[in-house]
Amino acid sequence: MEQKKSDALIPDKQMMQVGIIVEDIEKSAKAWTNFLGNEEIPEISVATGSEKNPTKYNGQPSDAKAKLVFFKLDNITIELIEPLGGPSTWQEFLDTKGEGIHHIAFDVKGMKNYIENFEDNGIPMIQHGGWETGEYGYFDGSNSLALIIELLEHYNQ
Amino acid sequence: MEQKKSDALIPDKQMMQVGIIVEDIEKSAKAWTNFLGNEEIPEISVATGSEKNPTKYNGQPSDAKAKLVFFKLDNITIELIEPLGGPSTWQEFLDTKGEGIHHIAFDVKGMKNYIENFEDNGIPMIQHGGWETGEYGYFDGSNSLALIIELLEHYNQ
Repeated sequence: MEQKKSDALIPDKQMMQVGIIVEDIEKSAKAWTNFLGNEEIPEISVATGSEKNPTKYNGQPSDAKAKLVFFKLDNITIELIEPLGGPSTWQEFLDTKGEGIHHIAFDVKGMKNYIENFEDNGIPMIQHGGWETGEYGYFDGSNSLALIIELLEHYNQ
Repeated sequence: MEQKKSDALIPDKQMMQVGIIVEDIEKSAKAWTNFLGNEEIPEISVATGSEKNPTKYNGQPSDAKAKLVFFKLDNITIELIEPLGGPSTWQEFLDTKGEGIHHIAFDVKGMKNYIENFEDNGIPMIQHGGWETGEYGYFDGSNSLALIIELLEHYNQ
């Protein structure tokens, strides 16, 4: 029954990230640093979108921004996200659900095929964007998987 | 600065589980099975509490029950939880936030010390229970970490 394997919607079973929406990233980054026993708070960056991969939310261009910070655990990365306004899944989550775990993420190669396959399987893309050397898509799995899935592609790896 | 390491509130940086609250576990278990390309839906169990580790929610005895199902990924386990009523963090999450990611979990040895240490650090235990060979605690990190942490202890491992 090996052929069943090819029906998976993700390329492997390695969860890369858990993404958490927060109201005050400086406060939460400090709390996570203490919780993990780390010595230094990691650098907080601002995701502003890029010309190469302009941000789209529900198919429309968006000037959404967010502050981000990453904590590497042994087997997975925790991402904190503070929405800075503009239409986005981050801001919508904060506005409707409050702080909490927003998504889990998987790495892919060839994002376009995954977008089509997810949408064919009833998991529509709600946000897409990226940076110079990579892109992301958020997919609304709320009808079946009960969460948002993020797919990440790093072009140069 | 090695001494800082001992200040971590968890024993290691291995995230064991992501727990997802669902309304209809049969539906979501089928969706996750398809998503992962697995051949068979894993067995769904019912957590009813145990005499050895009776369920307490906010310090009070609770007859809370939940259906559970587990999906092993390569680096982490996904747990689906359908609350079946009775006062619990599961039911409260579903009632107030709807379906979504409820917690991340870490393994510990010596739960009692962790409970004290978490509470001393402003992360109170909201639910405790278990089974014959193990116990769990849920801790409300919403003030700082922006999520619920579960600690798991397996006595015989």
